[in-house]
Amino acid sequence: MASESGKLWGGRFVGAVDPIMEKFNSSIAYDRHLWEVDVQGSKAYSRGLEKAGLLTKAEMDQILHGLDKVAEEWAQGTFKLNPNDEDIHTANERRLKELIGETAGKLHTGRSRNDQVVTDLRLWMRQNCSKLSALLWELIRTMVDRAEAERDVLFPGYTHLQRAQPIRWSHWILSHAVALTRDSERLLEVQKRVNVLPLGSGAIAGNPLGVDRELLRAELNFGAITLNSMDATSERDFVAEFLFWASLCMTHLSRMAEDLILYGTKEFSFVQLSDAYSTGSSLMPQKKNPDSLELIRSKAGRVFGREDKEAVFEVSDTMSAVLQVATGVISTLQIHRDNMARALSPDMLATDLAYYLVRKGMPFRQAHEASGKAVFMAETKGVALNQLSLKDLQAISPLFLGDVSRVWDYGHSVEQYAALGGTARSSVDWQIGQVRALLRAQQA
Amino acid sequence: MASESGKLWGGRFVGAVDPIMEKFNSSIAYDRHLWEVDVQGSKAYSRGLEKAGLLTKAEMDQILHGLDKVAEEWAQGTFKLNPNDEDIHTANERRLKELIGETAGKLHTGRSRNDQVVTDLRLWMRQNCSKLSALLWELIRTMVDRAEAERDVLFPGYTHLQRAQPIRWSHWILSHAVALTRDSERLLEVQKRVNVLPLGSGAIAGNPLGVDRELLRAELNFGAITLNSMDATSERDFVAEFLFWASLCMTHLSRMAEDLILYGTKEFSFVQLSDAYSTGSSLMPQKKNPDSLELIRSKAGRVFGREDKEAVFEVSDTMSAVLQVATGVISTLQIHRDNMARALSPDMLATDLAYYLVRKGMPFRQAHEASGKAVFMAETKGVALNQLSLKDLQAISPLFLGDVSRVWDYGHSVEQYAALGGTARSSVDWQIGQVRALLRAQQA
Amino acid sequence: MASESGKLWGGRFVGAVDPIMEKFNSSIAYDRHLWEVDVQGSKAYSRGLEKAGLLTKAEMDQILHGLDKVAEEWAQGTFKLNPNDEDIHTANERRLKELIGETAGKLHTGRSRNDQVVTDLRLWMRQNCSKLSALLWELIRTMVDRAEAERDVLFPGYTHLQRAQPIRWSHWILSHAVALTRDSERLLEVQKRVNVLPLGSGAIAGNPLGVDRELLRAELNFGAITLNSMDATSERDFVAEFLFWASLCMTHLSRMAEDLILYGTKEFSFVQLSDAYSTGSSLMPQKKNPDSLELIRSKAGRVFGREDKEAVFEVSDTMSAVLQVATGVISTLQIHRDNMARALSPDMLATDLAYYLVRKGMPFRQAHEASGKAVFMAETKGVALNQLSLKDLQAISPLFLGDVSRVWDYGHSVEQYAALGGTARSSVDWQIGQVRALLRAQQA
Amino acid sequence: MASESGKLWGGRFVGAVDPIMEKFNSSIAYDRHLWEVDVQGSKAYSRGLEKAGLLTKAEMDQILHGLDKVAEEWAQGTFKLNPNDEDIHTANERRLKELIGETAGKLHTGRSRNDQVVTDLRLWMRQNCSKLSALLWELIRTMVDRAEAERDVLFPGYTHLQRAQPIRWSHWILSHAVALTRDSERLLEVQKRVNVLPLGSGAIAGNPLGVDRELLRAELNFGAITLNSMDATSERDFVAEFLFWASLCMTHLSRMAEDLILYGTKEFSFVQLSDAYSTGSSLMPQKKNPDSLELIRSKAGRVFGREDKEAVFEVSDTMSAVLQVATGVISTLQIHRDNMARALSPDMLATDLAYYLVRKGMPFRQAHEASGKAVFMAETKGVALNQLSLKDLQAISPLFLGDVSRVWDYGHSVEQYAALGGTARSSVDWQIGQVRALLRAQQA
Repeated sequence: MASESGKLWGGRFVGAVDPIMEKFNSSIAYDRHLWEVDVQGSKAYSRGLEKAGLLTKAEMDQILHGLDKVAEEWAQGTFKLNPNDEDIHTANERRLKELIGETAGKLHTGRSRNDQVVTDLRLWMRQNCSKLSALLWELIRTMVDRAEAERDVLFPGYTHLQRAQPIRWSHWILSHAVALTRDSERLLEVQKRVNVLPLGSGAIAGNPLGVDRELLRAELNFGAITLNSMDATSERDFVAEFLFWASLCMTHLSRMAEDLILYGTKEFSFVQLSDAYSTGSSLMPQKKNPDSLELIRSKAGRVFGREDKEAVFEVSDTMSAVLQVATGVISTLQIHRDNMARALSPDMLATDLAYYLVRKGMPFRQAHEASGKAVFMAETKGVALNQLSLKDLQAISPLFLGDVSRVWDYGHSVEQYAALGGTARSSVDWQIGQVRALLRAQQA
Repeated sequence: MASESGKLWGGRFVGAVDPIMEKFNSSIAYDRHLWEVDVQGSKAYSRGLEKAGLLTKAEMDQILHGLDKVAEEWAQGTFKLNPNDEDIHTANERRLKELIGETAGKLHTGRSRNDQVVTDLRLWMRQNCSKLSALLWELIRTMVDRAEAERDVLFPGYTHLQRAQPIRWSHWILSHAVALTRDSERLLEVQKRVNVLPLGSGAIAGNPLGVDRELLRAELNFGAITLNSMDATSERDFVAEFLFWASLCMTHLSRMAEDLILYGTKEFSFVQLSDAYSTGSSLMPQKKNPDSLELIRSKAGRVFGREDKEAVFEVSDTMSAVLQVATGVISTLQIHRDNMARALSPDMLATDLAYYLVRKGMPFRQAHEASGKAVFMAETKGVALNQLSLKDLQAISPLFLGDVSRVWDYGHSVEQYAALGGTARSSVDWQIGQVRALLRAQQA
Repeated sequence: MASESGKLWGGRFVGAVDPIMEKFNSSIAYDRHLWEVDVQGSKAYSRGLEKAGLLTKAEMDQILHGLDKVAEEWAQGTFKLNPNDEDIHTANERRLKELIGETAGKLHTGRSRNDQVVTDLRLWMRQNCSKLSALLWELIRTMVDRAEAERDVLFPGYTHLQRAQPIRWSHWILSHAVALTRDSERLLEVQKRVNVLPLGSGAIAGNPLGVDRELLRAELNFGAITLNSMDATSERDFVAEFLFWASLCMTHLSRMAEDLILYGTKEFSFVQLSDAYSTGSSLMPQKKNPDSLELIRSKAGRVFGREDKEAVFEVSDTMSAVLQVATGVISTLQIHRDNMARALSPDMLATDLAYYLVRKGMPFRQAHEASGKAVFMAETKGVALNQLSLKDLQAISPLFLGDVSRVWDYGHSVEQYAALGGTARSSVDWQIGQVRALLRAQQA
Repeated sequence: MASESGKLWGGRFVGAVDPIMEKFNSSIAYDRHLWEVDVQGSKAYSRGLEKAGLLTKAEMDQILHGLDKVAEEWAQGTFKLNPNDEDIHTANERRLKELIGETAGKLHTGRSRNDQVVTDLRLWMRQNCSKLSALLWELIRTMVDRAEAERDVLFPGYTHLQRAQPIRWSHWILSHAVALTRDSERLLEVQKRVNVLPLGSGAIAGNPLGVDRELLRAELNFGAITLNSMDATSERDFVAEFLFWASLCMTHLSRMAEDLILYGTKEFSFVQLSDAYSTGSSLMPQKKNPDSLELIRSKAGRVFGREDKEAVFEVSDTMSAVLQVATGVISTLQIHRDNMARALSPDMLATDLAYYLVRKGMPFRQAHEASGKAVFMAETKGVALNQLSLKDLQAISPLFLGDVSRVWDYGHSVEQYAALGGTARSSVDWQIGQVRALLRAQQA
């Protein structure tokens, strides 16, 4: 008899179920994360049933008490799963019945499994988004603090992995921190859409028993109520949004990790990872691998394109670990200022050389070409760009005069980039202020 | 000589370029969409250069006038592309030089190609998001109007494609309309992050020539200014966000199309597509295929997982067509009320039968089992569920009394689902009101 | 001191490791599947070391014996993992050392962790591909048997979910079975590329100690040897191929499931799932949901786009369960022949009506149009297509004669489709024969 | 009247079609690639109709002649598309009718649009796979030739971007060439499954008019015949396989490009791209960007995850360009042998130092630790690893003797890696031989 098996749909089935189906259909392996919110949701729902007259006060108290006991067993690690517990919701209800008897059978009145599943998931994700926000803010703060402390370090900015222009080290840090502020803005938006109560939607048609959804909303502290019961039980936009958020955030962390891996190679030697974030090789004794950074990069792949409920749990864990590792890496990273300084080379000032001519009145396209000729001439002569003689330069354009020597000062170069968002010290300070203000606003 | 080829990086190259590279590298085939915003951006930038003293008033006027001429040629279809025009930006600047001479070479002063590309893209997308918002609102409005007009039509609600509970036809329409309101909310958020000025970021270090980015922002009517020049020229979060928005919106439209395809089969026969949205078969004369709906479904696949700039143009076009087709389909769809009514069957009231017992005091789990037994008994006897005699039912539970006959009224059934979001008429009216209020708020 | 922690890279590290890194970096949770092949690979490698003179015969025997003991502990469930065991390889080597002492330290001579990991993975996947092949063949065989037994059942063939032409039920079954034969062909090709020995590649440069890779290949029964040591340790093409294979196979199973879900709706009522593959609803007592089929469909989403090693284990498990469930579903499915017959309607013979005219000499395009007019006339008159009078038809074309009545026989219709691959009985028999021959060839 | 519009489904429709639907539904923009194979397929089909007695010899000749004329117009660029030509098949048939009159209407007898579309697609892809195979072989051959010519150049092998062990430059080239041989093997398998005739499958039920599919197969030179008509017209496995093939091949090219981008940075300075494969910056005069390599990398993203028919055309073009650019890059790349040699450092021989101890009888795990201690000691003393005195080394292990000095020879180091697949000269020669043999076998 099917009803003996304790399955929820009890009375009707007569055939046995293929055992592989049970395993196939079971989600208990991953949805146990939900035990706490499942109890929370059921407690609120029993209050709703009581107000609607479907539970007496005494029954409600019995259920609330029983649910607290269930929660206690989970918290203390003494909750025992049955092989028949196909999901966390079944498990908790089964246990409740063992604890308080038939009254437990009233808890699901007018509530569908979907109703319950999606409520639990939203409760869990709401909590989790808050935790991830806090970790993300911590990372951004660490980056901004470091950017402030090391404002005077210059090093090469790269495009296409080729040396492009001298910039401040802080400018690089802030370019990544600014990207992360968008992630934290987006996470707040996701959270707003997570924070909507679906409970009281039944299977599809709604709730016919007078349950007050406003009471449920208030009990569970949701910001709003879903508008349509069919949509409420089936939509998972908020899951897709969260996963998209995670993949975009991981893209940013992954790019930062990629830069740091490169800056940490023997060939670049700009930074050195703390031992706490490196590992060795089982074969090669001299190796010290930037495993933390490589894992950040590779985890990105595991976040992209997931679409299921399991993904939410796994991706949340991944994001939590990655944000903490990234914070650790940034706060312990050593930088090699001397190597950074040595990596600046005069050809990176070719743009400034063109601007020199622009300031003397030459149209930029001609100035770009003139500066390009100077680079070519220096390469041909086998000297550095700043070692061309004034005569050499004047062969290219008579606008070059003695004051061209001022171009070759890297500190002077970066200080020119004073428009908002640039790499001049004043602009970097402005960026630091802006990011800090954003953080304060988001945390409020 | 490389400089003769008119390439922008003129002076330095001495080798020839593999012709396949030119084709490979060229984006002109798709970025010509940008001609209008490219001119718009360049006009603003020339004003910035004038204020910074890098252009005289006369030079600026010459450039502005030339750019207007370029725009005119595009608008009239007389602009001629050269084989060397690798992108729209190069093409416009090349033409400007032909029109006004060397002064054109001053326009790019302090501006990098990335700077310009990303500014143009943001301008174009801002415009496009507005258009798509309008089309989306139009679709939602059509759906809500229809939902209001056909509130009294009942038909089966399905879960797992099995008949579940009687619902209002409007409840189904609204379940999809509500999903689309989330899309329109998200599109406004995307647009907010699109609407940020990057211009004035240079290649990487910023702008060194005193260009006032606040002036550029105001000229181009952006809502804010990017914070960091490295981030500004390289980040494409807003593209990823737009594509994600499109794929989520397409998922919703695709699900609606899937339902309608099914409802339009001979076997369901609930709805009939207008001929304007159907096509025939080249082989089978009797066929009338729901091609509009199938294309909506299949276009979803073309939206997912794109990540490039081309994708923005293609996906925008697709979304625009799909939203219009969906609006057309919904506004011309014929419904077959009789078939809908006929498809309601008493077993869909089994849940209500369980609630009947709940109202008499039986715990829901037992009531669910009792109702399941009634379903099984009816199947065994080969009769409809509402044809079991009172005696039959009482053999299952003595709580069944004569008033059980009231359960078998479909109209009565749906009216029970009066909690917010349910399928009762009052609740459907509430939903219509809520969605209309949302639309008004979003359009404001 | 780092060496006390038992980490493999022992002597060099002085900093402590951030605890979150250990968890982050650990793969033991999923790679324990590999315990058996890890022991197998290590046994082969110790034979290679002995032949190269790096182990004495006695040392080799000691290692082989120890490894057997490790395997025994795993098989009996007594193997105890340490918190420091970051992967299965570390765990087994750590345990070996506990069992046999310092000699264990010789086993990794000249072998890198990557070398070992990829060898283990290939061994495991080879085994698993064989298992999946067997399950896939079993499913195809079940389908072909069923197709043979039910050759005489006719039902509607659909395109675009619209009734298209009458076909044999077996024709539908075979359309899916034929797709699966391509999957089983592809799986053999994947297996061929899995079955290549990487061991002996070291970290990157190869093996410098005279290990005979041909001996290793023979010991582990691989079909070939990898050609380049750098490629061998880093390439995971075979993983990508396996995952692609799984996603294509799942697409096929998913489409079959989709058809069956539809055929099992109340509205179609062509088939009925066995209770063993259905589940009920926690809320609606009458529901019997095709959960097995829906899970097959939804698992498809979990197979697509995975790219990591974990994915191999998870996807293998999923495929194994899905193939078994599909076999169960197909072998227990009940079909409703009467409903199938009733669903055939005369308009599905409109193509045959056109062919009737073609046989009388009318060009097909005109015949298609004439038949279309007949369909339109029947719709306008509100009668079935076969109820148009001969006079009606002759108003459309004088080529219609009394023998047109023969068109309206469904059995006669399907028998016309006798070209290879069609739905005539002879052609269905040919298909059955072809698929059986393919199976025999693949199993050989 | 719908039939006036010239739509293929002529007689039945009475409503007008929403103009946006026509655009939405039209595929002519991309399927014009198919003009040649469409004519080829139709010519074969008309021969089939003649053999089946559905065309007279004279009619067939008229059609064949007309089709040749159509092909001629395409070839000469004089074919004129009508706005109503929704796809290439409609266009060709419309033109045929204009050229030869009503007989054209017989060509589609018993053939469905799907039948025709999938036949054309397979013909086109078969041709294209051959072209891509040839380009791929050309690339592999270029790589192997280069590997052979530069066998004596040593440089650092990297893992995790950290210097790992000295290897031959040819070993690196071959690691990528070997990966590409798998792609070319897979392409042959894809082609085998592309090369199957679907024509003669009709819409779904097959062909009822006695068309001999074996004749069609022979006419079109296909290797086999599809087994089931439903499967034949709907399956696109071969498209998915081709796209997967392309994405795996692009992954390999992308990785090679990534390495070369890195080796071409100022910091590594191992290689220099030919000017023919580089571009400059519109802002920075000194820049020379590896655009060819970056495009190869970025094109990878455009290949992944596409699933539609358009994708086939676009991805084929991309693959063709990418393979040619890659061949060009490899054949013109300059290498800087001095920089490569200078980048080899003694710590990369730490593994060899451990092997030195292993050869003296120390278990590898202890040897690894001892070598690690030497690395640490050298770092602490601030000297290179090979500058530790014998006394220093003996403090770590008494097994170190005077012959340890032989470890510090890079040429000696690589020559040890003589197992098959390693970096010793003999093994590199073996690899070259193996890859050449594979190429010969595949081309046969």
